[in-house]
Amino acid sequence: MSIVLHMENYYAPLDAAFHALADPTRRAVVSRLVKGPAPVKELAEPFDMGLPSFMKHLRILENDGLISSQKVGRVRTCWVNTERLAAAESWLSEQRELWQARTDRLAEYVETQMSRSVEDAG
Amino acid sequence: MSIVLHMENYYAPLDAAFHALADPTRRAVVSRLVKGPAPVKELAEPFDMGLPSFMKHLRILENDGLISSQKVGRVRTCWVNTERLAAAESWLSEQRELWQARTDRLAEYVETQMSRSVEDAG
Repeated sequence: MSIVLHMENYYAPLDAAFHALADPTRRAVVSRLVKGPAPVKELAEPFDMGLPSFMKHLRILENDGLISSQKVGRVRTCWVNTERLAAAESWLSEQRELWQARTDRLAEYVETQMSRSVEDAG
Repeated sequence: MSIVLHMENYYAPLDAAFHALADPTRRAVVSRLVKGPAPVKELAEPFDMGLPSFMKHLRILENDGLISSQKVGRVRTCWVNTERLAAAESWLSEQRELWQARTDRLAEYVETQMSRSVEDAG
């Protein structure tokens, strides 16, 4: 028997992804799960916090669509949903492309001005 | 005369970056500022919200270290700090590399198993 936890994601994918990742415990859980699924007990082990507090973080990650979990018998196993991580990375790389394009244009402008000054001086 | 707003960033850079980006208004401001600095008035224009609400978002962005601002006369100009965006993108791309490595290993395993089945059948 298995039960899949499903909670409605009530806000936009990028809002959810960035919200979930704004906490070191939740980022550490994601970093563990990108290497493969793991049971809750194993996920909780590295953290110096009570299980109820840790479960709150897992619920936020699941609610924000970054992880899913399934309970088989007494063991709940979690895995990562890579789509939201990928969406967040895409958004950030788009921003980087925009500011790099701007930096390149500035560098080009400065170079043109400098070579003009050299020509004027010569 | 110019005054540079400076607020202490009381939490970790990645916490701050992801926290700041978990809101569509703040992401839109960042998307505008990666193209170049802009005065607050221009930044606020596209948004259907009062200036006090909009200023709260700018304060969060500044507090989280994603933007800086400087007031000259009556005009406050904002610009983006790319370091925190870059740190957030790096963290996400590290996670992607880990899950891609895992996906590659799984694919390799399945291929090996399939070619063995073919050999056994032959």
